[in-house]
Amino acid sequence: MRSLEWDTQKKVLRIIDQRVLPTYLQFLEFKKPTEVTAAIQDMAIRGAPAIGVAAAFGLALAAWNTVAPSKNEFNEKLQKVATEIQRSRPTAVNLKWAIQRMQAVIEKHRGGIPELQQDLEEEAVRIDQENVADCLAISTFGAELINDGDTIIHHCNTGPLAVVEWGTALGMILLAHRQGKHVHVLVDETRPRLQGSRLTAWELQQNGVPFEIICDNAAGYFLKSGKANKVIFGADRVVRNGDLANKVGTYMLALAAYSNQVPVLSAFPSSSVDLSLKNGSQIKIEERGQEEVLDIQLHGERVTPEGARALNPAFDITPHDYINAFITELGVIRPPFEENLEKMIKTYRR
Amino acid sequence: MRSLEWDTQKKVLRIIDQRVLPTYLQFLEFKKPTEVTAAIQDMAIRGAPAIGVAAAFGLALAAWNTVAPSKNEFNEKLQKVATEIQRSRPTAVNLKWAIQRMQAVIEKHRGGIPELQQDLEEEAVRIDQENVADCLAISTFGAELINDGDTIIHHCNTGPLAVVEWGTALGMILLAHRQGKHVHVLVDETRPRLQGSRLTAWELQQNGVPFEIICDNAAGYFLKSGKANKVIFGADRVVRNGDLANKVGTYMLALAAYSNQVPVLSAFPSSSVDLSLKNGSQIKIEERGQEEVLDIQLHGERVTPEGARALNPAFDITPHDYINAFITELGVIRPPFEENLEKMIKTYRR
Repeated sequence: MRSLEWDTQKKVLRIIDQRVLPTYLQFLEFKKPTEVTAAIQDMAIRGAPAIGVAAAFGLALAAWNTVAPSKNEFNEKLQKVATEIQRSRPTAVNLKWAIQRMQAVIEKHRGGIPELQQDLEEEAVRIDQENVADCLAISTFGAELINDGDTIIHHCNTGPLAVVEWGTALGMILLAHRQGKHVHVLVDETRPRLQGSRLTAWELQQNGVPFEIICDNAAGYFLKSGKANKVIFGADRVVRNGDLANKVGTYMLALAAYSNQVPVLSAFPSSSVDLSLKNGSQIKIEERGQEEVLDIQLHGERVTPEGARALNPAFDITPHDYINAFITELGVIRPPFEENLEKMIKTYRR
Repeated sequence: MRSLEWDTQKKVLRIIDQRVLPTYLQFLEFKKPTEVTAAIQDMAIRGAPAIGVAAAFGLALAAWNTVAPSKNEFNEKLQKVATEIQRSRPTAVNLKWAIQRMQAVIEKHRGGIPELQQDLEEEAVRIDQENVADCLAISTFGAELINDGDTIIHHCNTGPLAVVEWGTALGMILLAHRQGKHVHVLVDETRPRLQGSRLTAWELQQNGVPFEIICDNAAGYFLKSGKANKVIFGADRVVRNGDLANKVGTYMLALAAYSNQVPVLSAFPSSSVDLSLKNGSQIKIEERGQEEVLDIQLHGERVTPEGARALNPAFDITPHDYINAFITELGVIRPPFEENLEKMIKTYRR
């Protein structure tokens, strides 16, 4: 199962609507780039790598739907769409990275409009295929770091739904399970959007991996009492010194693991690395709507008092000191992160 | 408003049903001790001090409802009820403490059954009144530690509902606000039962204190970015070295505050202190039903996959190193906690 699929005949992007899983498995079809932007904003599709691929197809849709009297005007219209899609979510860098790859095709292009349309579609398909290959490589490198008998705390969702296929942090776990290792997952429910108890739990169930859901705030209990021996999550943006932005709650989880000498692994494609920023304090943190926090229900009743307000930072910054290793499609990266991240990215990234 | 009230004419205990707040303000009336036990188990009444007072009235109800041919048999029946009530929740020590005070009345009693019935009711009323006085003292000592302009992260519920009146950790905050200090509260929603977003938010709203609800896992973001400068919570049991059991999530919150040099205060009546245990690892942690975690709903739909399981430790242990001060009705206690806790409790506790 793919989180998204491009129909090259119809020029249509089909995605799984992640807002209604696991209650419903519903698909959405997009013919216009504005639909893709809205789906990213509303988290119908989410996960840093999946957002990047969706954005690339959003620009492919824009190319096929744009009519212009000249190549210059055509390019200008596309650049406007590129800016709009890029603004849909600010924290993950994969979105920016995918858009930049599409923009590079536009900028270097010397042929006519029909050729550019075709080339943009092909570049998006390439980004999609590379993502699949990268995630398989991440899962393979990462599964090596998972031992038989591990009990792993996992935050947010980093399975197939967060990418195109395989997954990153969850991909490692799924592959280790497929290799016959006994792994047990404690699934952080991941407030406020519950990507853990909705999406990760569903993916683990589909793959027959034993798991229990826990409240995010209970992870410390399992780490301190020795009931969990590994923590694995993804990353939405990793900067030069190894600090990373990931789903809110990652920081407290990594800190609690570090304080209890439990290894912390973060898995992501190299497109999540942003060497333009020096440290985590420079990453812009998205503040999302307060309804995501307030609209919680128990037994069918909304529980927060009428008129109450909420603050909802969607991400936080985990300092690199708390991380034992990064897993990318290029291999496993260990401290000192600043040196090793730069070396690996500059030497091997396409 | 009182979380519970004893009707001495009717021999009835009336409580606010905390399960349905803030949607409904409903009262429950109990005439039998089994109803009190069930209400404690199901968290219709909750908060370590409130549970202790409710348990005392539970035994008073038992006394008025017990018929026995001899004083010995009467006492035996009451002791059986005492054991049942005490088993209702294992972690908070106030429950045990209140039951022990009631048991001491039974053991020392030399009069007839009607006098014992009356004496037990009076002891329960005394426990209730002392709790009110203690919470006012805690709030008064604690408010001194709150500065104008503080932004305070608060976990779970420790307001009037958690005790009888005033509150402990939230009592400090409410009193500081009443004293004219500008305080702002970031309310941890406190999964899974949402005592923060349901009860604390409601109590702050009633008292006009400015606040926002945050997801528990976002506290680290506010602490690390300097947007919160104090952390305050209660305690369900504090042992000899100062380690404490409190609502699950307290440990991760205290750790994140400590790592960011943000002061951490814990407020509780001295009845929460258990000098019989050496350190936190000896405290029994209650595991509650998995439905509390799984039954969460968004937009009216239950979100966890059919057949998924959950783990639900209701408390965790916070090491004393992360705490800057304890606030009790006997005053403020600072490190070294082992020495100062014992001295204060042994010297001053009734």
